[in-house]
Amino acid sequence: MGREIRKVAIVGGGVIGAAWAARFLLNGIDVAVFDLDPEVERKTLEVVANARRAQTRLHGAALPAEGKLTFAGSVAEAVADADFIQESLPEREDLKQRVLAEVDAAMPAHAVIGSSTSGLLPTKLQNGMQRPDRLVVGHPFNPVYLLPLVEVCGGDQTSLETIDVASALYTRVGMKVLHVRHEIDGFIADRLLEAVWREALWLINDGIATAAEIDDAIRFGAGLRWSFMGTFLTYRLAGGEAGMRHFLHQFGPSMEWPWTKLVGPKLTDELIDTVAAQSDDQAAGIGLREYEALRDSCLVDIMHALERNDFASGAVAKAYRTSLQGKEAVTLGSDCGDGHLLTQHTPVMPEWIDYNDHLTEWAYLKLFGDATDVVLARIGAGPDYVATGFSFYTVETHIRHLGQARLGQKVEVRTRVLGSDGKRLHLSHEMTNLDSATLIATAEHMLVHVDAKAEKSAPAPQHIAQAMQGLAAAQQHLAPPDGAGRSIKMPG
Amino acid sequence: MGREIRKVAIVGGGVIGAAWAARFLLNGIDVAVFDLDPEVERKTLEVVANARRAQTRLHGAALPAEGKLTFAGSVAEAVADADFIQESLPEREDLKQRVLAEVDAAMPAHAVIGSSTSGLLPTKLQNGMQRPDRLVVGHPFNPVYLLPLVEVCGGDQTSLETIDVASALYTRVGMKVLHVRHEIDGFIADRLLEAVWREALWLINDGIATAAEIDDAIRFGAGLRWSFMGTFLTYRLAGGEAGMRHFLHQFGPSMEWPWTKLVGPKLTDELIDTVAAQSDDQAAGIGLREYEALRDSCLVDIMHALERNDFASGAVAKAYRTSLQGKEAVTLGSDCGDGHLLTQHTPVMPEWIDYNDHLTEWAYLKLFGDATDVVLARIGAGPDYVATGFSFYTVETHIRHLGQARLGQKVEVRTRVLGSDGKRLHLSHEMTNLDSATLIATAEHMLVHVDAKAEKSAPAPQHIAQAMQGLAAAQQHLAPPDGAGRSIKMPG
Repeated sequence: MGREIRKVAIVGGGVIGAAWAARFLLNGIDVAVFDLDPEVERKTLEVVANARRAQTRLHGAALPAEGKLTFAGSVAEAVADADFIQESLPEREDLKQRVLAEVDAAMPAHAVIGSSTSGLLPTKLQNGMQRPDRLVVGHPFNPVYLLPLVEVCGGDQTSLETIDVASALYTRVGMKVLHVRHEIDGFIADRLLEAVWREALWLINDGIATAAEIDDAIRFGAGLRWSFMGTFLTYRLAGGEAGMRHFLHQFGPSMEWPWTKLVGPKLTDELIDTVAAQSDDQAAGIGLREYEALRDSCLVDIMHALERNDFASGAVAKAYRTSLQGKEAVTLGSDCGDGHLLTQHTPVMPEWIDYNDHLTEWAYLKLFGDATDVVLARIGAGPDYVATGFSFYTVETHIRHLGQARLGQKVEVRTRVLGSDGKRLHLSHEMTNLDSATLIATAEHMLVHVDAKAEKSAPAPQHIAQAMQGLAAAQQHLAPPDGAGRSIKMPG
Repeated sequence: MGREIRKVAIVGGGVIGAAWAARFLLNGIDVAVFDLDPEVERKTLEVVANARRAQTRLHGAALPAEGKLTFAGSVAEAVADADFIQESLPEREDLKQRVLAEVDAAMPAHAVIGSSTSGLLPTKLQNGMQRPDRLVVGHPFNPVYLLPLVEVCGGDQTSLETIDVASALYTRVGMKVLHVRHEIDGFIADRLLEAVWREALWLINDGIATAAEIDDAIRFGAGLRWSFMGTFLTYRLAGGEAGMRHFLHQFGPSMEWPWTKLVGPKLTDELIDTVAAQSDDQAAGIGLREYEALRDSCLVDIMHALERNDFASGAVAKAYRTSLQGKEAVTLGSDCGDGHLLTQHTPVMPEWIDYNDHLTEWAYLKLFGDATDVVLARIGAGPDYVATGFSFYTVETHIRHLGQARLGQKVEVRTRVLGSDGKRLHLSHEMTNLDSATLIATAEHMLVHVDAKAEKSAPAPQHIAQAMQGLAAAQQHLAPPDGAGRSIKMPG
């Protein structure tokens, strides 16, 4: 497959284009944006800031160093040295055809174009291009910097290589590629969304329910399931032990029941007034930006929830983060330069804060525990070793709280080995708030090597014992850490 | 509003009926189940076990003591002393009418009937009842013991009191009531689901996409949003600064586009074969029970994720848990009988375990920290006090790990106050695994009273100082806790 993609041009910098820009930038890809809107720079930067906040919550320190963002004065300037072009213009076939021909004429020979169209046919968009084989549809979903789905659909003249290049790029930036194998208006996703939308408009048109009621009918019921299981798997489960075939046979007669209106209502001025007014009521005075932030926060937390189950978009997020390994700006387990090991480096995540917005008590131990895991990996006792039936257990912990860290502030843990007798491992961690440049906590741990099956302590194998003693010896020149060996008591 | 509901009869004990039984039981309501299936007892108990696991993960120790489950030999026996009857028979109008008349004849005068029908009209179901005013539709969604949505819809003869009684009961058991104000086939939710289902069947019928692809088109895109925002709020955000009205005007022409088939395909044997085979492929050999457990686990984690945002079904779960306060089987902050305070009592939650299925390191400190919060509430320094700008901060912690706890095992923390000087509070916690009856960890904490605005320590006000010293004095007769005052060191 072709060369690595280092630069992407965004042609059309609205809500969708700006979010594409953010997704590429946050993956270390340079981006040039072109849009006729004189405010394109301000708007793009706002979206990139939202995306950075959300992706940092989702993936933490795993993200690579960001790419460089520039704004171009013309289509030709934007695409001149781009490896990939993402077109996100308004949904007008004639407009897209005209600009795509312009892109085609100015882009490098190896470049590929992805179109964000939500339903126009690529075979038609290719009309008028000199190299129609280089165009493919890459249809994303709002917010593009968080939702994984991208529908990839080629036209009659699209080459297989073009489909491969686009799919590889989208996968690289954390997305889930759905190959639309047959060109059809609305592809797959928007046909389903459109069915819901048309039926929902009928319900308002006929005065059956309001916008808020219709939304509640989704989000408190089927919508909760749809975040990880689609209609078919859901109905398979509903069919129970009798199975899908039995379920379908039961369903047969109901296909004749008048349970959908099956055509969209005419969008008269009156219906538009009604829907717009109900939408205002539903929003209850909460502003657009506030809802966007809430939406992003919910999406991140849901993806984390699904990641805990290694399922659906949680599995995509996990695979993506794994793919980023080794690309982080900082390498855990490496020497800090002063003899300590760097064992944690992360912004304070929202799930770690208390009602005062501070890093909460247990999260200190989570970070110290993760720091201990970094040391264990360094001495050859990481997950692969644990899988063999041996492990280190923490038997004793002493934490001192000296300061605080707030949501989003960067914290770092540095670690030294105070001693080891070949079975025990005595560690000292120091946690620094990098934003305030203050030491905020220390931890001292005693760990013991155990045979997990026998459930008793056992000497570590020689290579691990040597690694522990090697680290302790290398760090012996460091001054004894403040507070080590301390016990808790009331001042006298 | 009528008397308290103490007993519910479930008429029709299939997947839906059994899950209703579980929801009521877990809320301390007695349940009698009637179904002709000779295996009803085994099947119901399986569903109740799933529900108990899921609700315990969702709400922990907040749930009240469970109600009593019985199985009745007839409809008349089941409903004879019931305050509420939930009918969950197959979706056949004639069958439901016949059994509802039977229920009506045998139930107490004050009782109310909720029908689980997903789309039959209550006005028709009331036909043939002596007291048609007592019937209302309460349409739930699978799995009923987790999804909050219930559509409540009265028929022409349903009384307002009946609607109120049913709505209050459903709310009490943690559900979100959606009042369907106009009787319509399929109510609100199933009209939307049916639109998706019919379009999805067309996509398979026409060979455009497979069951797995269609499911992916939902769960990696719009489905993620739908777990907390419906179509209207989503499109409001998509409309951006221009607003909903502008968005609708733009959308107008597309209503004419052929983006839905708008009628369901005929469910021929051939189409049924195709869908059933694709569903088998999608399930990839994973069994029904395994998928159900995965589904429940995802739903619980998603509701927790939304609760962190105090939004959508997360807000419902939070309000429900608040409504349960004071009904827990165990009261935190009370005396254990031996002078210690009972400060935690909970099963080990899935989010607290490590790769070995054991309670993980940081979760010990979470439980000890929560135990400290119980002590603070007891001495008058709970959340209300924190809101006044004062608080206690932990400055030092010493933990000893002596044993382990596995997923689902019950653990308890008992606490004593070792001392207080009116500003500092010295605590000792002991964590016991109740299932193995062993002490698994101890923690010693030093806390300091602080003026949070000034960011410095300050003497506690007199009522708190007295409460601290009172507890310390009352517990002075207890033997000194093992390990207190210890420091970490290598054995000599």
